[in-house]
Order: sequence, then structure tokens, then C-alpha cells
Amino acid sequence: MKAVRLHGYHQQPVVDDVPEPTVQGPLDVVVKIGGAGVCRTDLHIIEGQWEAAMGPTLPYTIGHENAGWVHEVGSAVTNVQVGDTVILHPTPTCGLCRACRAGQDMHCVNSSFPGLSHDGGMAEYLLTSARACVKLDPQTRPQDVAALADAGITAYHAVRKAIPLLYPGTTCVLVGAGGLGHIGIQCLAALTATKIIVVDRNPDALKLAEQLGAQYTVVADGGHVDAVRDLTDGAGADVVLDFVAEQGAEQDGFAMTRPAGSYFVIGYGGEVHVPTLDIISTERNIIGNIVGTYNELAELMVLAESGKVTLHTKTYPLAEAAEALKDLDAGRVRGRAILVP
Amino acid sequence: MKAVRLHGYHQQPVVDDVPEPTVQGPLDVVVKIGGAGVCRTDLHIIEGQWEAAMGPTLPYTIGHENAGWVHEVGSAVTNVQVGDTVILHPTPTCGLCRACRAGQDMHCVNSSFPGLSHDGGMAEYLLTSARACVKLDPQTRPQDVAALADAGITAYHAVRKAIPLLYPGTTCVLVGAGGLGHIGIQCLAALTATKIIVVDRNPDALKLAEQLGAQYTVVADGGHVDAVRDLTDGAGADVVLDFVAEQGAEQDGFAMTRPAGSYFVIGYGGEVHVPTLDIISTERNIIGNIVGTYNELAELMVLAESGKVTLHTKTYPLAEAAEALKDLDAGRVRGRAILVP
Amino acid sequence: MKAVRLHGYHQQPVVDDVPEPTVQGPLDVVVKIGGAGVCRTDLHIIEGQWEAAMGPTLPYTIGHENAGWVHEVGSAVTNVQVGDTVILHPTPTCGLCRACRAGQDMHCVNSSFPGLSHDGGMAEYLLTSARACVKLDPQTRPQDVAALADAGITAYHAVRKAIPLLYPGTTCVLVGAGGLGHIGIQCLAALTATKIIVVDRNPDALKLAEQLGAQYTVVADGGHVDAVRDLTDGAGADVVLDFVAEQGAEQDGFAMTRPAGSYFVIGYGGEVHVPTLDIISTERNIIGNIVGTYNELAELMVLAESGKVTLHTKTYPLAEAAEALKDLDAGRVRGRAILVP
Amino acid sequence: MKAVRLHGYHQQPVVDDVPEPTVQGPLDVVVKIGGAGVCRTDLHIIEGQWEAAMGPTLPYTIGHENAGWVHEVGSAVTNVQVGDTVILHPTPTCGLCRACRAGQDMHCVNSSFPGLSHDGGMAEYLLTSARACVKLDPQTRPQDVAALADAGITAYHAVRKAIPLLYPGTTCVLVGAGGLGHIGIQCLAALTATKIIVVDRNPDALKLAEQLGAQYTVVADGGHVDAVRDLTDGAGADVVLDFVAEQGAEQDGFAMTRPAGSYFVIGYGGEVHVPTLDIISTERNIIGNIVGTYNELAELMVLAESGKVTLHTKTYPLAEAAEALKDLDAGRVRGRAILVP
Repeated sequence: MKAVRLHGYHQQPVVDDVPEPTVQGPLDVVVKIGGAGVCRTDLHIIEGQWEAAMGPTLPYTIGHENAGWVHEVGSAVTNVQVGDTVILHPTPTCGLCRACRAGQDMHCVNSSFPGLSHDGGMAEYLLTSARACVKLDPQTRPQDVAALADAGITAYHAVRKAIPLLYPGTTCVLVGAGGLGHIGIQCLAALTATKIIVVDRNPDALKLAEQLGAQYTVVADGGHVDAVRDLTDGAGADVVLDFVAEQGAEQDGFAMTRPAGSYFVIGYGGEVHVPTLDIISTERNIIGNIVGTYNELAELMVLAESGKVTLHTKTYPLAEAAEALKDLDAGRVRGRAILVP
Repeated sequence: MKAVRLHGYHQQPVVDDVPEPTVQGPLDVVVKIGGAGVCRTDLHIIEGQWEAAMGPTLPYTIGHENAGWVHEVGSAVTNVQVGDTVILHPTPTCGLCRACRAGQDMHCVNSSFPGLSHDGGMAEYLLTSARACVKLDPQTRPQDVAALADAGITAYHAVRKAIPLLYPGTTCVLVGAGGLGHIGIQCLAALTATKIIVVDRNPDALKLAEQLGAQYTVVADGGHVDAVRDLTDGAGADVVLDFVAEQGAEQDGFAMTRPAGSYFVIGYGGEVHVPTLDIISTERNIIGNIVGTYNELAELMVLAESGKVTLHTKTYPLAEAAEALKDLDAGRVRGRAILVP
Repeated sequence: MKAVRLHGYHQQPVVDDVPEPTVQGPLDVVVKIGGAGVCRTDLHIIEGQWEAAMGPTLPYTIGHENAGWVHEVGSAVTNVQVGDTVILHPTPTCGLCRACRAGQDMHCVNSSFPGLSHDGGMAEYLLTSARACVKLDPQTRPQDVAALADAGITAYHAVRKAIPLLYPGTTCVLVGAGGLGHIGIQCLAALTATKIIVVDRNPDALKLAEQLGAQYTVVADGGHVDAVRDLTDGAGADVVLDFVAEQGAEQDGFAMTRPAGSYFVIGYGGEVHVPTLDIISTERNIIGNIVGTYNELAELMVLAESGKVTLHTKTYPLAEAAEALKDLDAGRVRGRAILVP
Repeated sequence: MKAVRLHGYHQQPVVDDVPEPTVQGPLDVVVKIGGAGVCRTDLHIIEGQWEAAMGPTLPYTIGHENAGWVHEVGSAVTNVQVGDTVILHPTPTCGLCRACRAGQDMHCVNSSFPGLSHDGGMAEYLLTSARACVKLDPQTRPQDVAALADAGITAYHAVRKAIPLLYPGTTCVLVGAGGLGHIGIQCLAALTATKIIVVDRNPDALKLAEQLGAQYTVVADGGHVDAVRDLTDGAGADVVLDFVAEQGAEQDGFAMTRPAGSYFVIGYGGEVHVPTLDIISTERNIIGNIVGTYNELAELMVLAESGKVTLHTKTYPLAEAAEALKDLDAGRVRGRAILVP
């Protein structure tokens, strides 16, 4: 089969011919890929940023945002059958550790991460496990929803955690209306009545943000912290969801958070510097966010199937993976790029 | 009356003769002071660290940790009577803003802070409001409980917020077993069954910590982060309560926090530096903590009256305030110094 | 001034001339009434159902759902001024007890209830307290929002408590789409993405329910419990909000609740009968609901001002109070009847 | 092997010779039983009360409260090995449904219940699944902890849910200090600083309750509702944990609950009758409770291993199962009866 493989860091991945994966253990599932999202993390992988943490053996197949159809199942698989349309939680988990049993499966101590630690889904077939499969309406086109598997679930997870803080009368600032952020805006609008302010450098992204539910948009041109304060009686926002968290956004994000408020870090690349006096005198929180749980992915699919969350995507054939990665790097993708094998 | 007054920054306060305060508004209360705690914040006030934030007019009376007896009440006061024994919430609040009505009165937008913004309680009498008075068993000696008014409530507030995270099988690291920390240990032991590890530079403080409920103690001698990891299967603690948060403790505190864990900042003076990648890849939180609510002070008094929290104090006559401040600065106070007018 | 007064139980109230109320204490506020809602509880008052609990001295002025303009304020009132447009929390509270300070002011141990325990707001003026006044946009017409003061806040309170249970993929059944229920539907639609099923005897009420956000409607004709099960894969709803809770609705409500689900009682008049085996074997909850908090009323006003909650009302001059009560009793009011002095 | 089998309802089970169970599927585990608890539910099974719900094929082996050593494992089992000491969650679960993934595995839609629906653990060996095994310190004697597998986990689950309601200054009434209740008292004392009042008919049970942490005990002699009110300023308890919930205890339990309080149903057999007016006017809750989660069992084992929860047991050889059942029925067991094969 065809697969997009990384042969060396700081090199573009290439499309190779490799053997199809097959089921090994009783809970394995092989999925025929219908859509594979292209993520900023793929750029970071190519740059070698994840080498130390994940240590994959090169060459290997990248791609961690996938949907498709079940192709083969292990002997003990009971939740899906061959032919089912599925979207895949990005990290197959063990189901036995405390985190898995506590509804926090993204903290599974035995999870793997296809596309980062070993072969992923920018390919015709992917080997995953029964626990990662969310069964979908058979009419769903995998390429239309694949981006929810990682970008979507991450944005949804952060928003869901923030809901109790976002009762009517509060304000939420969302920084970065890109692949994740444009889903976050829709989740906020579907699940809360908070006032939504979106901050981004790109005026086109802000235009999309307005269509998706932002009440106010602010261009990140240097005056955006003051602009947010002006929109919040000088106090800042109850919650700031920072989908950028690099290049200064992380300092601005905390500065835009009001006393007793919470700054949610979702993007990465930068470094937070805060005097402990500023943290305690205002009792502000800095909240870490990672990919969501399997149940959260299932919940997000409910929002998607009811039309409350829609994706803005640009599709490419699998063979044009390199072009998709270049477009993403150059800021030429509105929403999410999707490879279709 | 006698009052301990600050005449200039970087100078020791002196004991002056000043007029007694009297009730002005219908909700005012004048309290005869029975005990006034001496806090590290008083040292910071003298150093001028709170000048910008609080802007008191010098000279003024310091002291923000008080208990005593009601001496005079305004016409609309219904919750206390002259003669009642009371401990005072440090920040009289309005009772009308959203925070006051939401059970978060420490975020009252109209609160004042006697001892920081204007005349406090290192004196024979203090002017406060009905809303600040927690009525006590008449047999309570104010000097025995005064330190709960600020040190106690702050430690209790942080512990109470952490309780849902500290189910059996978890570990809590408490950094700094001084005035606040030694109360925090007792609150943890009374309200959870978590494993308690206490970190401090001072072996005497660690000895006290063991008596108060710590299962493990670690000397903060440079190897303490590794020592905590060794005690937690290499993962770190579910919750770290940092009562120091300066001089490097703030970096160590975050480093001792396990994935999906929370680092609680309670002390101040230092600066947190954390890559956003470290925050998101482990989904750790940095939680701000300020003084607690009025209700939390009342709850803490229940623990105190049942003997579950006891204070280690050293009393000084009001006239020896300067000596108490020097002893605190020199690390010669185990527990809390209390002035008795 | 004119006031609608009850002279005896089981008699229609009459419009009397009585003296205007005046400010007595420092926190008192007199409000010129702009709108006074007519509530099913007023019918129950006339029937004597509240005599034992509230014990008002007859004759007295009924009416507990009010909005208007501030007419006179006590010496210590700081949150409103003469001329402000306000909506009134139905139970003035003390602000000093634990419940008031814990964000549960509806459980204030010193609250009063104008319109039930003493003179209420079906009159030209009402004596209340500063703590009951929620300041509104000066352009708001009190008659347009008065029904939010009791019907609205009660519905909102129940919905807000249910939000954590109503993530995407869940189902909420709302029983009774009348004065309270038609507000509850809008709150559910504004604050959750749950599937909303509305049950009512009246086809017109169901038609309104669909316009306000119900995805499914079910006529309460005897087959409604089965109909709800059919809409929920046979399991029942995650949450049932019962605005009726009498005449059998209370038994049906529990029966429509799925395992691990919660049955919220909001209406009253009936009696719940449930074997403890049914409660424990399915781990279902029966949740009591009373009027909401001051902050909840303020939040609801945010929803109202943004157009997310709109009231269906029918106005009557104050002099026609008896007619309004009769229309309500006869089921001739869609939404809420409002008296305008 | 020997097994205690029920051949017909309303007959005593008998000890039969039956074949040992063996592993069938990849996740199966066979456990050599070291201790099997005798539960009031076993009496109800014999009476036929569970026939309709569980429908076991007679004859079958009863016993649902077990601990022992792993004897054989399926090919895909990774969490335990032959020889491990284990305690068993009573209901093996699928790990794939929403409830299992949400930390609510007791609501698993595919769970089985050995001892109720098919062969249980009053035998030398039991067939269960990997997901049910909690690994213990190898030195633990299974007979010492077996009662935690069902009685313990149920009591712990209810207490854990109540913790957020039981801050210092509150009161918790615990009704029924028997097999479950005597564990509940210890969990309350270990995890909260609430005032504990224990109600029981049996003075010996109350004596034990005092030793285990009750501050007050009340004989259930008819005056107990008033006695509880006297101990709670006339208001009732914040939380009532009812381990009886039959023969009138269920009415008394609700009556002993204060406004805004919660009545937890844990026992069964009776029927709750409450006017909806009483529920809404005081905003009281009735909370269902079933067996706890796997993680809760693991947490409880931490309490047990640290000595914070100890069991009062009486052991019998497996051959004397009938006698143990008779003793339980006659009220001759203090704590829990345990069969040792």
C-alpha cells in the first residue's frame, strides 16, 4: 500500500510502497483510511521536536488524525465489525489502568500514539485497537470528519473543561482561529452562552470566526491585550483559551485573564513567565490541556452529526502529502488539510 | 490607645498613642483586640512591596490577623453583640457584588484590607465590619486562634480546593512547614487520607511536620525533587502545595508535580518559568491561591475547636512588636508569633 | 395606592386603597412596580395552601414576581439609586448567614417572602431590600421581564443544576411547557446541546415548545412514558425536569428517568412513591428544586437581554387582577399573565 | 471442587462437587478463592427476590464478595499473573461502553454479576475477567479483606459521593451499623471531619460504632428522629446515609435530612413516600447508591492497607455456609461472615 513516510528529520516525508498491516492480537483492528488530517504537529515531527519524547524508528508513516472503515478485526473485538464507518481516537489505550477507568483515558499509562511513536494513518491502512474506534453513521464520509479525531477532540476537551466557568455574563477569549480554534468557537457557541471574543493575526480567520459564532474579533496587532480589556470592563476574560501559546501569545494570554480567571494552554512552543505574586494576588490559574477522551470524541461526533460543528477543510490526494504540509506551513490552509487515499 | 505604626518604608514600625476608632456606619463593628498575628507579609509591607498595590497613607497601623471581643456595633448590625468573642476575616466585604454572593467573597470588588490599605489590628482596638466577624465559643482565648485569621484561612482554602484531587492512593507534597504550612499539614490530615510528604530546609520544621501528620519528610537540600520522585514511583505528586514559591521553590514545585497533577501556588516572591509544551504534554495545572472565604474561616474554627488543628505560637506583648518582626525575619519563630495588647 | 389584597382564603383578592410603603431601615428600598407576574402559587395562596407555612396577617397584598423602578432608598444602600430600572429577587435575604455567603441565598435562614409572608408586589409600590435589586438596562420595560423574577429564576435554577449532566448525546425530558416550562426550554437550548423532549397535555403548548427549541414533543395522553422510552433507546432520559409534579406526573417522571439519571422535581402538589430497590438498583436520583439565587437571576437577565430567552406574556391592568387569576386557573394563559399598575 | 449451590428458591443452598472452571476467552481469569463474604443479598436471592432481575439457571453457585489468588489467565491478560493476590470487583465489565470509559463502570451496559446471574464465588474457584482483578500486597490474607469486595465498596462509594457535602461544621447521620455501615463509619472518619451520628436498633452495634468513629449514637427506638433533630439545632443532618431503607427507616431517613440536604439510599426493601411540596420547598435530594467502581475498590484497599478501615468478621469453613446464612438471618453476626474454602 501507499504510505507517507519520514526518512529523516528536516526532510519532507515521501510516499513509499509498504506492506499492509494485519491484525496480530485479539483486540487489534485494521482500518481502511478514508481521510487523514494534516496537523501542525506533523511539521513539528519533521523538525525533530518529538524525537526525544516519542523515539520512532525511521523511516515510519506519519498521520495521527484518521477516519475510515473497519477492514479486519481481532478475535475478541466486540464493539465494531468489518465494514463499519469509524473515526479513531488518536491514542489506543489499555482500558485497565486507573486513568482509563477514571474517564481520563488520555492519561493512560500504557497508551501508544500511531503517527508519533510508530506507523500512523497517512496511508491506505492503519493498525489500531478496538478501544480507539468510535462507530459512526454509515453515511458519514470519513474525509469530512477526520479532522475531528485530533484537532476537534483537543478543542472540544478544552471547551468542555471550561463550561462550568462560562455561565451567562462571562467572557471567553479564544486565541488562534485556525485548525483547532475554528472548532473551539463552534463548541463554545453550542455549549455556552458566554460572550466570545476571538483574537488572531489573520483578518480572514477573524471573518470565519464571526460566521462561526464570535461576538467580537480582535486583530493580534500589538494592541490586542488592551482591546480585550476594553471589551471586558478593564478586567480581562473569565477564561482565555490559547490555541497558539508561542511567540508571545502565552504572555498576552495570561495578561488577558481576569482575577479568579483561568488561562487554558492548548497550543505550544512558547514559555510562560509569571511572578508567583501575580498568580496568588489575583488567584488566577494556568490550565494544561491535552487531547480529549474517547467519550469526548463520541460527544463531538454528536455535535458534528447535528450540524453544530462543521469543518472547514481542503482535501489533497495522498500522493500530494508534501504539498499539503507546505501549504500548512505557509499559512495557506483555512481550517484543516485532509489527505484522501 | 497603643498601635504599631509604620512611619516609613524600610523602617521598623513603632508603638504610638492614637485615638480609639469608633463606629461610623450602620454595619461597622469595633473590636477590642485579644491577639494579632505577625506575618511574613508584614515584613514585605515594611520593605515597601505592597505600596503600589495598597497605597496606604503613612503613618498607619499594620496587622491583618486578628481576634478579640466586640466592643461597639453600628445600628444595623444583627449578627454580633457587644461582648461576643470573634475572629475576623481579614478583608471586610460588601456582600452585594457577584463574588460575595457566589461564595467567593475573597474576590469582592469592594473589599478593604485593614493592615494593608489602612489601619489594621496591631493595636488595642480595630474598626471592621459586621460581615468580617465570625462568632466564637465565648471561652476561646483570642490569642490562641488569631493566627487562623490569615495564615490559617489561607492554608485551609488551598487544602479545601485540593480535596477532590486527593482521594486514597494519591500523594500530596507540601513545601514549607512554617506559619501557614504547619496548619496546612493538619488540614490535610483531617480532611483526606492522601499520603503527605513535607519538604522544608529546616530539620526542626520537619520534626514538627511529622508530629502533625506528615508520613514522609524531605530536607530541601538540592536533592529534594529526586527524593519526591523516589517516593512517588518516579511520577511526582498529584498535588503540590507550595507555601514558599520563591528562591527556586517554584521551579521545583512544578517539577515535583505528576502528569495530570496540579501545582498550587500559595507563597510568593519568585517567578514561574514553564515551557507551554511541558504544560500541555502532561496536562498539568498551576493553581493560584489567595486568602479563603468567610465560610472557610468558620469551617476552620470548627476544626480548631475540635482539636484537629492546633497552632504553634509564641506570644509577645504589643510593645515588643519590633522584636517579634525581627524574630520572624531571622527564622526564630516556630509556628506563628502573636502580639497580645 | 392601589393594591391587590387577600381578605380571606377561598375568596378572590380585591383592589384596595392602602398607604404607600416607605423606607424604614438603612438597607430598605421602595420600588415603583412596572409589572407583577401572576403565578400558580397565587392560586394556591388563595386556596390556603401556604397559610400554615407563611402565616400572613389578612388582609395583605399578594404578588411575588416583580420588576419596576427604584423609588426610595435607605441610608446605607450603595448598589442602586432612585430611578434605576430593577427586577427583584423574590426573597430578600440577610447576606450574613452561611447560605447567603455560600452562593445559596435561596436557603438564607433569615429571608422573607413578600407576597407570601407579608405585603407583596401586586400594587403600585413595594417595600423590599437592597440585596433583592438586580439593576437592569434603563431601557428595559419592567412588564416585559417581571415573569423572570420567579417563574424564570426557578426554571433557570433547575436547568443550570442539570447542565453538567447534559453533555452532547444525552436526552432531557421537560414535563409541562407552561409559565415556567417555556422558559426552561429556552434555557436548555441556550446552555446545552442535549436532545430536548417536551411532554404536555396541551397541543398548543407543544407547538410553542417546538418553536422555542424542543426537538421532540409528546402529548401527555397516557402513552407518554412509552413514547419517551421509544425516543431514548428504551432506557429513559438522563434528566427529567418535572414542572408539574402532581396528578401522576411525578410517578411518570421517575419512570422516564434512565439508570444513573436524575429526576428533578420543580412543580408540586403530588406525592412520589418509589421502592428503595428501584432507587438503588438503578442509582437514580430525585433532585429537589426551589427558586434560584440572586446571581442566577442576574445571569438569566443576560440571556433575556441577548434575546436567548423571551417571554410569552399577556398583560392586564392592575384593576383586572381577578380576571387574570381566573384566566390562569382556567388554562387560558399561554406563557405568563402580567399585571401592569 | 466444592461449591455452595442453590437448587431451588426458599431452600438452603447445599455444598456440591462440581467441575473447576477454566479460562475460555483471552481476558478470562480463574481465581482460587481465599474468602467469600456472606451478604444479606444472599438471603434475598434464596427468597427469590432477584429471580426476575437476574434469571440464573438453577442449580448455581452463589457468592459475590470474593478475594483469593490468580490461578489461570487468558492469552491477552496483562494486568495480573498466576499467583497474584487479588480482590474482585463484583461485576466484571466490558471496558468499552460509555459508562466504563466515564469512570462509572458499575453502570456498564454489558456487565455480568457472578453469584447472581451465574456461578459465583462460594466455591474453591471462580471464573472472572481481567478487568475485575485488583492486585493486592502479596501478604494480604484474602479472608481478611473479602468483605470489602461488595459491602466495603458499596459503603465507600456512598461516602465518597457525599464528601463534597460534608465540610467541617456539617453533620452526617448513618443509619444501620452492620456489615456495610460499620465500614461506612470508618470511611467517613478517614475522609471527612463531619460530625458523625449513628442510628441503629442494636446497642452492641452502637458500641462498635463509637469505637469506629461515631461522635454520637442514637438507638432506633421510635424517638430517633427527634433525637437527631436535637443534635442538629432542630434542622436535621446535611447528609443521611441509610444502610437500612426498609421497615420505616426510609421515611425516618428523609425526615432527618435538613433543608438543602441529601438523603442517600443504600439499603433496600422499603418504599419512599414524599409529597413533592416537601421536596421542592426545602430543596432536598434523594440520592441512589449502588456498588462502587473498580477504582473505588482500589482506593478502599489503600485505606484498608493503611489500617484506616478494618473489618469485623467471623469466619466459617465453606462446608458451613448454611450455618453462616442462618446466623446472618438471625442477627447473630457482628460485622461480616466470611466463608473460607
